[in-house]
Amino acid sequence: MLHSPQIVFTVKKVTEFNLIYNHINTQSIDRPDVLTGIGDDCAILNIPEGYSLAVSMDTLVCGVHFPENASAYSIGYKALAVNLSDLASAGAIPAWITLSLTMPDADKFWLNDFLEGLFALAKKHDVQLIGGDTTTGPLSISIQAHGFVKKALLRSNAKVDDLIFVSGYLGDAALGFKAYNEIPTILDGCKARFDQPEPRVGLGLKLTRIASSCIDISDGLISDLGHICEQSKCGAEVNLSKIPLSEEYLSYFTKNDLYKQALTFGDDYELCFTVAADLESEVLKLSKSLSLPITCIGKITDSEGIQFFDENNKTILFKQKGYEHFNES
Amino acid sequence: MLHSPQIVFTVKKVTEFNLIYNHINTQSIDRPDVLTGIGDDCAILNIPEGYSLAVSMDTLVCGVHFPENASAYSIGYKALAVNLSDLASAGAIPAWITLSLTMPDADKFWLNDFLEGLFALAKKHDVQLIGGDTTTGPLSISIQAHGFVKKALLRSNAKVDDLIFVSGYLGDAALGFKAYNEIPTILDGCKARFDQPEPRVGLGLKLTRIASSCIDISDGLISDLGHICEQSKCGAEVNLSKIPLSEEYLSYFTKNDLYKQALTFGDDYELCFTVAADLESEVLKLSKSLSLPITCIGKITDSEGIQFFDENNKTILFKQKGYEHFNES
Repeated sequence: MLHSPQIVFTVKKVTEFNLIYNHINTQSIDRPDVLTGIGDDCAILNIPEGYSLAVSMDTLVCGVHFPENASAYSIGYKALAVNLSDLASAGAIPAWITLSLTMPDADKFWLNDFLEGLFALAKKHDVQLIGGDTTTGPLSISIQAHGFVKKALLRSNAKVDDLIFVSGYLGDAALGFKAYNEIPTILDGCKARFDQPEPRVGLGLKLTRIASSCIDISDGLISDLGHICEQSKCGAEVNLSKIPLSEEYLSYFTKNDLYKQALTFGDDYELCFTVAADLESEVLKLSKSLSLPITCIGKITDSEGIQFFDENNKTILFKQKGYEHFNES
Repeated sequence: MLHSPQIVFTVKKVTEFNLIYNHINTQSIDRPDVLTGIGDDCAILNIPEGYSLAVSMDTLVCGVHFPENASAYSIGYKALAVNLSDLASAGAIPAWITLSLTMPDADKFWLNDFLEGLFALAKKHDVQLIGGDTTTGPLSISIQAHGFVKKALLRSNAKVDDLIFVSGYLGDAALGFKAYNEIPTILDGCKARFDQPEPRVGLGLKLTRIASSCIDISDGLISDLGHICEQSKCGAEVNLSKIPLSEEYLSYFTKNDLYKQALTFGDDYELCFTVAADLESEVLKLSKSLSLPITCIGKITDSEGIQFFDENNKTILFKQKGYEHFNES
């Protein structure tokens, strides 16, 4: 090609991910299994030999999954936490995430805080952001988390007479959510239980040795234990008085309304899992070694659905299910 | 636990993915490397030995990436196509996708058409939907595509004097987009070039043997070739008269405005790649075997940025860059 160049046109970098790319130096994780990370059409990644890949994708929409006045830090933290929680419930080791961020405008202060929250949790679990997409539109965040697993925990393998356990306390996220709308002076300290749930990654990893099934409590125990029952083709009986409730929860909710939020609100991101009865002592050891309350709340049955019993052994019916996104037309 | 059951509460399945789950039987792909697909907290997947994982995530937002009156079928098709195009530009073999679908309401007719478009393209490339998330909110679609690659094509490896090629024709997507707003009687036949781009998966796979760098043209040649230049730390000269333009494009756009759309609109999802000059004959063979026009449009230089020359060897300056989502504040 013959030519006489006069004007040189320099192209500015305009990838969709540009906006985040400029802030990415706040990410301190640089994993050796990431051959190509952010900045190309694809991320190129190596899976360790002998492991399968576990992937989970969750989307948070402003006004649906978090209040409009939630802090950017909390939104970033939670968007990752809910995905790591899915890895935890499969017993997978977290490795990488991709992020699809839709924002109404390019607010770099908001983005800084958002990434600070996200990277704070990512660092804790050695998770690297490897790519994604940034687009204009109403605020929503999709994260896909990737992890490694040798033998995944599933929802579908619970057996009749297995014991049912939950980690932590149920209903505290409901309490945290109330802090956005009600008596903030009393509940302000509980906000983080909704905003910044702790994904039970360490517990999930240990459970691969002993649990027959596992799920994280995102939609409420009724709904999530219901998935285990449905997919394991079994039923469950749950003793209401065993449901672990925090002191703050007990002091806020009245007796008449005691279990509703704990069983149906969801967002606690604790693990609900089943273990053969002869392995109960292993669960107690786990609870001790992780300094995490783990409570036996009932057992798997050969009936259909979940039966709840109160302290007088009376069956209780809950009309409200867990959070449901759509009532299909 | 002693009890006297009277009322059994049966839990209805309420996973976030329920809505799509009910329509999933229209998916005809069932890959042996998917150990657990839709219906658990994570999908569990096997990567073939000796391969790395290539992942790409793209989001389409209604009113930003597709017009509000685009058909559900087209939206489903294109949401997958843009992601497969990213795999193509890395030279990866497509395998699985996850889908995060945010919809204002649960319109099962819309969803049927959307999945029909998505699965039509998925089937063509043996791609299985392995999970995702469905949420309420303004219409947007995030897909993450996963593929396998031995040695990925990158943006960063172009060498001075390499020849620059593009597949297909540039600017036809701009023409298709115009069909939504202008003189539909003339352009109706071109709509599909915007709505249903053909990801160049077969070409990408073959290019792993001969190309030094590759990118798909999503934001326009100026922007995308610019990425190759920036990441390969080189420049490029492009002969405008070599830019491949379709007959329909040439008959619609006036001479004064001939190149603007072809170089800046994007959405063509053709591949732009570089090849050492002594391998040019291999590219010609590829073009023939794939029945796909592939055109040499210029070469890589050791200067900075991209210089465009017209038929009189005069340097042309384009002020408009490719599509940019944000002008960061």
